[in-house]
Amino acid sequence: MEHLDTVPRPWPLRAARTGPLPADHPLAWLDGAAERRSRAGLTRRTVPRPPSEGLLDLAGNDYLGLMRHPRVVEAAAEAARTWGAGSGGSRLVTGDTELHGELERELAAFHGSEAALVFSSGYTANLAMVTALAAPTADEAEPPLVVCDQYNHASLIDATRLAKAAGSRVTVFPHGDADRAAGLLSGGAGRRLLLSDTVFSVDGDLTDVSSLAEVARTHRAALLLDDAHGLGVVGPGGRGAAGADLGGADDVVVSVTLSKSLGAQGGAVLGSRRVIRHLVETARTFVFDTGLAPAAAGAALAALRVLRAEPERAEAVRSRARELSEGLRARGLSASAPDAAVVSVLAPSPEAAVDWRAACLADGVRVGCFRPPSVPDGRSRLRLTASATLDNTDIRRVLDVITTNRPG
Amino acid sequence: MEHLDTVPRPWPLRAARTGPLPADHPLAWLDGAAERRSRAGLTRRTVPRPPSEGLLDLAGNDYLGLMRHPRVVEAAAEAARTWGAGSGGSRLVTGDTELHGELERELAAFHGSEAALVFSSGYTANLAMVTALAAPTADEAEPPLVVCDQYNHASLIDATRLAKAAGSRVTVFPHGDADRAAGLLSGGAGRRLLLSDTVFSVDGDLTDVSSLAEVARTHRAALLLDDAHGLGVVGPGGRGAAGADLGGADDVVVSVTLSKSLGAQGGAVLGSRRVIRHLVETARTFVFDTGLAPAAAGAALAALRVLRAEPERAEAVRSRARELSEGLRARGLSASAPDAAVVSVLAPSPEAAVDWRAACLADGVRVGCFRPPSVPDGRSRLRLTASATLDNTDIRRVLDVITTNRPG
Ligand SMILES: Cc1ncc(COP(=O)(O)O)c(C=O)c1O
Ligand SMILES: Cc1ncc(COP(=O)(O)O)c(C=O)c1O
Repeated sequence: MEHLDTVPRPWPLRAARTGPLPADHPLAWLDGAAERRSRAGLTRRTVPRPPSEGLLDLAGNDYLGLMRHPRVVEAAAEAARTWGAGSGGSRLVTGDTELHGELERELAAFHGSEAALVFSSGYTANLAMVTALAAPTADEAEPPLVVCDQYNHASLIDATRLAKAAGSRVTVFPHGDADRAAGLLSGGAGRRLLLSDTVFSVDGDLTDVSSLAEVARTHRAALLLDDAHGLGVVGPGGRGAAGADLGGADDVVVSVTLSKSLGAQGGAVLGSRRVIRHLVETARTFVFDTGLAPAAAGAALAALRVLRAEPERAEAVRSRARELSEGLRARGLSASAPDAAVVSVLAPSPEAAVDWRAACLADGVRVGCFRPPSVPDGRSRLRLTASATLDNTDIRRVLDVITTNRPG
Repeated sequence: MEHLDTVPRPWPLRAARTGPLPADHPLAWLDGAAERRSRAGLTRRTVPRPPSEGLLDLAGNDYLGLMRHPRVVEAAAEAARTWGAGSGGSRLVTGDTELHGELERELAAFHGSEAALVFSSGYTANLAMVTALAAPTADEAEPPLVVCDQYNHASLIDATRLAKAAGSRVTVFPHGDADRAAGLLSGGAGRRLLLSDTVFSVDGDLTDVSSLAEVARTHRAALLLDDAHGLGVVGPGGRGAAGADLGGADDVVVSVTLSKSLGAQGGAVLGSRRVIRHLVETARTFVFDTGLAPAAAGAALAALRVLRAEPERAEAVRSRARELSEGLRARGLSASAPDAAVVSVLAPSPEAAVDWRAACLADGVRVGCFRPPSVPDGRSRLRLTASATLDNTDIRRVLDVITTNRPG
């Protein structure tokens, strides 16, 4: 390993200023903002992990245990060797490879959609899907109306903020309430879009996709679904929450990520050929972003093939989640009944959630911990994600560690 | 290679609808939008490339030739093996590894900044930098003012749209006009930010960073610079456009990408520790996005080390760009004088640019081609990016092919 101090440095190192900034410094406000977060118990930091920790990890999104699967890892390595460490540019310029096309064809076929388009992340895929489809077009008299579940993922919310900035109307319905969604869609004369996560990332609950689809069709709205936590976990063979009826319907558009059940990085939008063509030609996070790195594309493709060959992985993750939830409830904890891989366990306060999480970690079990602003006030919780690779002994250990360390 | 047809499919394949959609279909408008783009000559498509083409590539952003450098590729493969094909979650949950920290420390040291934060793309890094620093805070009476160069990159523009949606004021000054920027900054009582690309991606011109810094300091504005095309190309040893004076200054924040001169994928924000802490705790594209894939982080780190060990690569790319520009001008073409790696060559129309590019490709030279809306109307052009790896024969061949195929 090289050391930095041994490399010549063509520039002087600036001495870091210590202590608070003068009041008229343009970034002096950062200290006050940090103090407010700290007082509210909202300090966050990254905690770098070593390559292997001997922990049970129930915090990540590697639902199927594919992130370290030998075939997936080897595919990442092989893709880097074949195609280079990066894609080299926007996919409209020079960043498009046959590997991207192969991944898109297999994703589309797996999902039952006509076409797919791969992005550098699930976040940018969502920005693309929503902004490209929800922005007003030149010949529209009325602005489009976008109707959104209140708990949609941050990336969908950012996307609707951009759509609103472009002139669209955005309204929000109470979480999971298809009737209220229908009410909102019945106003206005412009075109309409209904936008929802399938599996909500915080609570792990699956929205009633068929009701949303019915509402969308009744009101001639396009249905846009973020299936980030559904792909690989729910639906036949892990096909996702859009299910056999909706995946491939030409009034439904679905986004997924390659970074959760597929164990890699990236995102994709699945839809009809005309939708995908529209995204290629107009979506800013496609046109103006470097194509996904070949290693990530290759890994996701290999993971998809493992899932296709071993569809029982999808079932395994759902059963493990149910076992966790039932075990926690049997021990008197307030655990959610999982629709997919996520189980959440309510904590009395943000601070208690943080301490609880730390105690579990000290006992060898990593769980997630969500506090405001990731979740509403008063809903701080531990968040457990099941994985297809947990065995019975693992499950018992997790239940014991969480119960032993419960607050108060 | 497995074949899709041989895998059992648990769902029926929906027959694709052929022909136009009924007028009341929620996505019927897509056909009209596609037709308008087509009439305007703005059709775009991805063209997947094979692993090796025997072409001279002057379209990508692999400025230093590191994307396929054996050490960079091997680092990608090694990182996937050590850490897995993905990071597994948000870096605040489980997606943070020692590798991310190592990359951040070396990026910061190379740049002369106190700290760095790595993102899944340059796009999401820019969204984070601008939205987290430009959004109004709870205790501000006046909204922050963001003053932007008119040609800023799409990711910065999206970021300012989000800042505006959050309540900030956003104004735009004519490209490169520091005086007009100063005029805009002198209004209002709230805090101020000045936001600019360093090297502009389309024309490849370097903005006058020192003038912007002086203007920012005079008006107590934070200076936010996107150095995507500067890192590895300009400045001592490829340190970037912020230069020895500004990199590390605590009122300057710089974003870079890992997808261009570093040949990988990802982005980073470089700044003081208080800025980085603020991003970790508040930036939505950090908090709610999966951490960068280990393969990309490892590749970028290896590329940075090659650049540090071989700083002459940065000079080589600049000389090659100058030779291209001078050669094209000597042949009567309207080529820009490059400040960095990019040379653009004006074309008479969007269609002519497309044909010109295709003719060069047929002759074995890939160049980029920019048309509206990537560039203003009437400024369609070929876009050439020099690479440190081009030799004299390559340069002569590029000049010949472009000149032979010039329009009209
Ligand atoms: C529901 C949902 N959508 C989108 C994303 C973004 O995907 P990615 O992390 O791959 O960018 C996430 C999580 O990260 C998510 O939970
Ligand atoms: C100036 C500029 N900033 C940011 C980006 C985004 O970086 P990335 O492609 O790594 O997401 C790009 C290009 O892609 C760019 O040209």
